[in-house]
Amino acid sequence: MRTMIKNIKLGEVNEVAGFVENIRNKKTMCFIVLKDQSSKLQLTIEKEKHPDLIDTLDKITIDSVISAKGLIMESEYVKLNGMEMYPDEIKIESVAEPSPIVAPKGEETNIDLRLDYRWIDLRTDKNLLMFKVQSYFINKAREFLNERDFIEIHTPKLIGAESESGAGVFKVDYFDRNAYLAQSPQFYKQMAMAAGFERIYESGPVFRAEKFASRKHATEFTGFDLEFSYIKSYKDVMKMEEEMLEYALRKTSEKYKDEIKKVYDIDLVVPTLPFPVMDLHDVYDELEKRYGYKVSESEKGDLTTEGERLVAKLSKDMFNHEFLFITGYSKENRAFYHMRDEKGVPCGYDLIWKGCEITTGAQREHRYEILKAQAKEKGLDEDVKFYLDFFKYGCPPHGGFGIGVDRITMLIFNEGIKDSMFLFRGPDRLNP
Amino acid sequence: MRTMIKNIKLGEVNEVAGFVENIRNKKTMCFIVLKDQSSKLQLTIEKEKHPDLIDTLDKITIDSVISAKGLIMESEYVKLNGMEMYPDEIKIESVAEPSPIVAPKGEETNIDLRLDYRWIDLRTDKNLLMFKVQSYFINKAREFLNERDFIEIHTPKLIGAESESGAGVFKVDYFDRNAYLAQSPQFYKQMAMAAGFERIYESGPVFRAEKFASRKHATEFTGFDLEFSYIKSYKDVMKMEEEMLEYALRKTSEKYKDEIKKVYDIDLVVPTLPFPVMDLHDVYDELEKRYGYKVSESEKGDLTTEGERLVAKLSKDMFNHEFLFITGYSKENRAFYHMRDEKGVPCGYDLIWKGCEITTGAQREHRYEILKAQAKEKGLDEDVKFYLDFFKYGCPPHGGFGIGVDRITMLIFNEGIKDSMFLFRGPDRLNP
Repeated sequence: MRTMIKNIKLGEVNEVAGFVENIRNKKTMCFIVLKDQSSKLQLTIEKEKHPDLIDTLDKITIDSVISAKGLIMESEYVKLNGMEMYPDEIKIESVAEPSPIVAPKGEETNIDLRLDYRWIDLRTDKNLLMFKVQSYFINKAREFLNERDFIEIHTPKLIGAESESGAGVFKVDYFDRNAYLAQSPQFYKQMAMAAGFERIYESGPVFRAEKFASRKHATEFTGFDLEFSYIKSYKDVMKMEEEMLEYALRKTSEKYKDEIKKVYDIDLVVPTLPFPVMDLHDVYDELEKRYGYKVSESEKGDLTTEGERLVAKLSKDMFNHEFLFITGYSKENRAFYHMRDEKGVPCGYDLIWKGCEITTGAQREHRYEILKAQAKEKGLDEDVKFYLDFFKYGCPPHGGFGIGVDRITMLIFNEGIKDSMFLFRGPDRLNP
Repeated sequence: MRTMIKNIKLGEVNEVAGFVENIRNKKTMCFIVLKDQSSKLQLTIEKEKHPDLIDTLDKITIDSVISAKGLIMESEYVKLNGMEMYPDEIKIESVAEPSPIVAPKGEETNIDLRLDYRWIDLRTDKNLLMFKVQSYFINKAREFLNERDFIEIHTPKLIGAESESGAGVFKVDYFDRNAYLAQSPQFYKQMAMAAGFERIYESGPVFRAEKFASRKHATEFTGFDLEFSYIKSYKDVMKMEEEMLEYALRKTSEKYKDEIKKVYDIDLVVPTLPFPVMDLHDVYDELEKRYGYKVSESEKGDLTTEGERLVAKLSKDMFNHEFLFITGYSKENRAFYHMRDEKGVPCGYDLIWKGCEITTGAQREHRYEILKAQAKEKGLDEDVKFYLDFFKYGCPPHGGFGIGVDRITMLIFNEGIKDSMFLFRGPDRLNP
């Protein structure tokens, strides 16, 4: 049986397997750095003692996959966990051709070439760690929700009608008619509320048929969405979100803080509770007062791109916090299904992390007549008829939010979106 | 703050909220059965003591959503957990129109009408329990894998080329070209192996553009797929699968066995380890010997539909087991990427549960030249060129399997596929 490198034992004969990260094949000695998902190990071969291995060693290239069996010894010369292996057996599982994405010394391989060969690009320590952390973070968020009686559901991505207007939607040839790809699970999350599933979440792909020029967008990404019933206010939604994020970041920090520091030189900060909250108008007042950033009155119902960026600094300066909840967006800038207060202000918020919007959350309008009127006001009442029906036969008050898994990943590691997805999809990118 | 019914306390004033399952509004008394995600509670109102509530009570219809606040009292007449509430306050959150899917007494509503109003259909005790169990089962499977160093990944569903031949694929208008919807994450799971992600899993939608007439199929369903490296044989894959299923079923049984028995009258059986294994040829021999089921020699490379059904009985009779691994399928009936042994027999298996195939698993061919030849043999080498490239630059030996979340659900509860999905999708069904 093969042992992961993190589990090898000094003084024992172990079998290990992995990619050859480096090989120095000298006249009398051969040194191989072997890398698996868990760690790295040096293999040291004295050729005089192992003439039987020489042919094999000559075939091994960088990135080849080998397995090796031998005694694990202490080594003061080897930095890798102070141990090395003296293999008696080496087997080549797969010989690698030279990597097509190695840049000349001092240069960086451009992102498009790296994405063409993403599976090779993903082999770096940074990328492996990134996806370990992403996986852990999401599972900890699920754990938080499971403990609070949330149910995970799987809603259809193939839908019969173009749903939420605004964002572009992909059309699918569906036998003798058209289907569309869901831009979010929003309507079906709310259907679950009408079904008496009080607390649900879903993680799954969402699709946006939009050409864009931003480091934040993709045509397909992973959404993590939740919705829950019997809230009294959108403040209950904010509370659920901040507690979930604090929990998932705290657990992630406990396990990966040191490794993130070592590999990325980034300090993962566990946010304090509660997160600071500001009204959008106060945000603009402070941005002007503190940093001289001014926008026209007509722009003040939404957060501008530059305003969003500046919020990173604002939240740091005012609250010493990486996060900021912003409330008080104008109804023109919010979806028709957001509940509004008696003044017509949407009962919802955006959450900004490090100057990047990661969430829109809200209490939803669950009263059929009001919801229908709000849809009509946006010219949508016919398009969303099937959705309005969810509210005719009894529906609890409810609210929820969605976060982008890839965007969270991007912000933890300060990387662009293309580098933060297992496999990026954009208008010009469908491969591999 | 509202309390879930399962958490109410005798002698305390609690606030509860839920759907009205039943209401008997008499001259002097009113009885309401209130249902939330956790349980049910009777509300008892003596009208003489609460004239202020009479108007509200008169507006309440079945399926309306209300909240109520009052003292929790013991009750020997009420079967629901021996408690009832005497509300002082009742608030209507949402009035329900009469349900459009109530069948005349003694009749059953047909499935298509129920699916048209799936959110009402989902309100039954059976359906709520089904999705609680599904959610719990999948999270326990994830837990099993997380403890074994698996990483969860999210692979793209929009792909540039029609991938695995055979099953039908949906075409998507993708800006000025076509994209296709992934029929499985197979190729990208393997890409992760080439990336040195040794152990990965994914749960997400898969799409099949097929017209069918079976109680097992849908055009979109939820796949749970995993893949892992450095296996010695497909037997390592079988072992991982049986241990994962045993763990998830055992944990699910511990939490939900009694409730499943009560609501469905079904005994959830935790399978013993290891699962029985038979070669396909031996299966046919036994089916003939025991039950007189005979097929022609040319059919013996695959399991017939009737054979699959009979395997439920065979596995019970021979091994007293609900599961059976079957090996020894012919290469004509397996995908080109399955590794083959020295005799040309694919190194893989199907897993049959209760007479229904839930998994195809295998060791994959990771050696570029052999894989390419096997693709060519099936006439696929040009179509899968992008996939073959994954194996050129070093790739560990690996294998994996996929299970259908909806099929597992269907088999736990002995329901059809349309009743086992949150929202079924078929060639004629894209709504709601």
